[in-house]
Amino acid sequence: MNKIDPWGTQLIEDYSRLIKDFGLEPMQDFLLDFPGPNYLMKRGIVFGGQGLKELSAAMKEKKPFYCLTGIMPSSERIHFGTKTVIEMVKYFQENNAKTFVLVADLESAATRGISLKEARERAMDFYIPAYIALGLNPKKTVFYFQSENSEVKNLAYLFSQKITLNEFKSIYGEVHPSRILSALAQAGDILFPQLNEKMPGVIPVGIDQSPHIRLARDIVRRTKSEFNFFLPSATYHKFVPSLDGSNKMSKSNPNSFVSIPEESNSAGKKMKKALTGGRNTVEEQKKLGGQPENCMIFEMYKQHLIEDDKKLQQIYDNCKAGKLLCGQDKDNAFELMISFQEDFKKKLENARKTRKQWKFVKS
Amino acid sequence: MNKIDPWGTQLIEDYSRLIKDFGLEPMQDFLLDFPGPNYLMKRGIVFGGQGLKELSAAMKEKKPFYCLTGIMPSSERIHFGTKTVIEMVKYFQENNAKTFVLVADLESAATRGISLKEARERAMDFYIPAYIALGLNPKKTVFYFQSENSEVKNLAYLFSQKITLNEFKSIYGEVHPSRILSALAQAGDILFPQLNEKMPGVIPVGIDQSPHIRLARDIVRRTKSEFNFFLPSATYHKFVPSLDGSNKMSKSNPNSFVSIPEESNSAGKKMKKALTGGRNTVEEQKKLGGQPENCMIFEMYKQHLIEDDKKLQQIYDNCKAGKLLCGQDKDNAFELMISFQEDFKKKLENARKTRKQWKFVKS
Repeated sequence: MNKIDPWGTQLIEDYSRLIKDFGLEPMQDFLLDFPGPNYLMKRGIVFGGQGLKELSAAMKEKKPFYCLTGIMPSSERIHFGTKTVIEMVKYFQENNAKTFVLVADLESAATRGISLKEARERAMDFYIPAYIALGLNPKKTVFYFQSENSEVKNLAYLFSQKITLNEFKSIYGEVHPSRILSALAQAGDILFPQLNEKMPGVIPVGIDQSPHIRLARDIVRRTKSEFNFFLPSATYHKFVPSLDGSNKMSKSNPNSFVSIPEESNSAGKKMKKALTGGRNTVEEQKKLGGQPENCMIFEMYKQHLIEDDKKLQQIYDNCKAGKLLCGQDKDNAFELMISFQEDFKKKLENARKTRKQWKFVKS
Repeated sequence: MNKIDPWGTQLIEDYSRLIKDFGLEPMQDFLLDFPGPNYLMKRGIVFGGQGLKELSAAMKEKKPFYCLTGIMPSSERIHFGTKTVIEMVKYFQENNAKTFVLVADLESAATRGISLKEARERAMDFYIPAYIALGLNPKKTVFYFQSENSEVKNLAYLFSQKITLNEFKSIYGEVHPSRILSALAQAGDILFPQLNEKMPGVIPVGIDQSPHIRLARDIVRRTKSEFNFFLPSATYHKFVPSLDGSNKMSKSNPNSFVSIPEESNSAGKKMKKALTGGRNTVEEQKKLGGQPENCMIFEMYKQHLIEDDKKLQQIYDNCKAGKLLCGQDKDNAFELMISFQEDFKKKLENARKTRKQWKFVKS
């Protein structure tokens, strides 16, 4: 019987090429350097990063460092990829990261037509409490709205001189002016904490966000004489696979993913249809065993629903042995999902009550 | 003997093509609509504009309107084109324009490497008092620094969605990201006064700045449902011709123009070398008369040094009659220049003392 290799399942192998092509650092090479890595790092869900050496060194030596993430207040639901980001923020916060959470209200206004007022309400009523419900410590966090942060916008302005249109195109593909402003503002966000204090910092993101990190790092190199920023580090997590097995969940196909929050009925229906690693017949599956490495339900466990390695291993073993069949497994997963969602709702309500503790900065 | 035709000298005729090509409105068609037009408008130095009907109507009906101009704190001298702008601002202020003057400190930082601090000092110590010395009424003016105006930068962000990269290229030629940010911020500046009050407004600029007006007007049309701004109007003035007769003075050729302020010695040397409309020999000139319409000194009189139409006419007539020769004329012009510069310096000193009256807004 195979052991789960947390550092090398089939899905992770798909990412080794990304690591090579984009010159990223594999997380597995740094696991011993990070104090008490979390399950996402150990399982290779957070599979790589940039500047991991500087980051882990600062953490080990208990030097000041920061962690930054953003809220795009475009709807009233978040997806499981955001949960992964917040798990990482939580990990860094527990290791004393100075934490910054920005609300990208300008970006949601420019790109989604959401008014600044509406964005603010959504952030206050849903996103910030949701982040707290997912593990963000509000007492150790500084929040700001892009629209109220003049310094970030000034940075965007100053950075605009440092990169040509062709370089933009090579990082982002075809560009629209709004994308240029948005990307430069994100570079401003990423480096804003260093206006007060020069220090290493980490931006935990999905791998699809790596162009922003690349831009910010390029800009740091080109503004050495003016700003002398530390190069920002990043951790990259895998795409949340869609339930139908395509590489990345897509908002245009709402059946392909479960949101946070989501009603039981609809979550249940989607999970029932999920692609698994089952065989053609029950008999065959009992004989040959299932293929958890190809199973979207198992991936949900691994990424989001089961932190306990032993439990995960047990499911893996039972599946491989042909003892746990897909129907039963989906029922179990659904139970875990319900319980996660219920827990989230309770925590969301509690988080809303902490509103007075939230610290906002303007500049 | 010819009469000066203030609405149609040779130099103005060069601009009729611009008017046609760019769909501008000739100032001469609106002279009767504007209350008490100043000498720049009557002489066709301010030769055209956009939205002149709406602007003149608001002025005649004494409806609220605004006038906006900017300071680019890139050096410690200004050129005579800026004097023309301030003459127009003064004209509009005297007709009750709500007046806004922004300091483009972000732009000078991004494009000229001038720190925000240095830009602020230059604005406070030189540019703002210089504008006042040239006729700006500080009691009726609202000043702001781009770096301190979050609303302008937010507008730039929102506007970025409304224009494609190709449209940018068609307005500005080849574009750099910094140019995109700068242009969108200028559109934000132009429309900022309307965030508080929707009203017509005018931006007096040199014709080389017309792309910014075009962009702002395009954006107004495309943000009708969100903002419902009035289309901004503009007045366009001719290039200040360089003393050597090329079409526009150039900073790369400092001998081609006199600055404000400038020392007598250096101003005198430059004016001595100026291109005039003189003939090959004194005899010929006495016989045929001079050609003031081709004379850079005469253009200086017309644009900047002589407001009195009768005095200007007298010089024109004496030149045409061969009575006033170029040497004498240059000496006279130099006297006027010295007197202008001395007067400016005195007014600058006095303006510096009004610092406490200057009203700055932040947002």
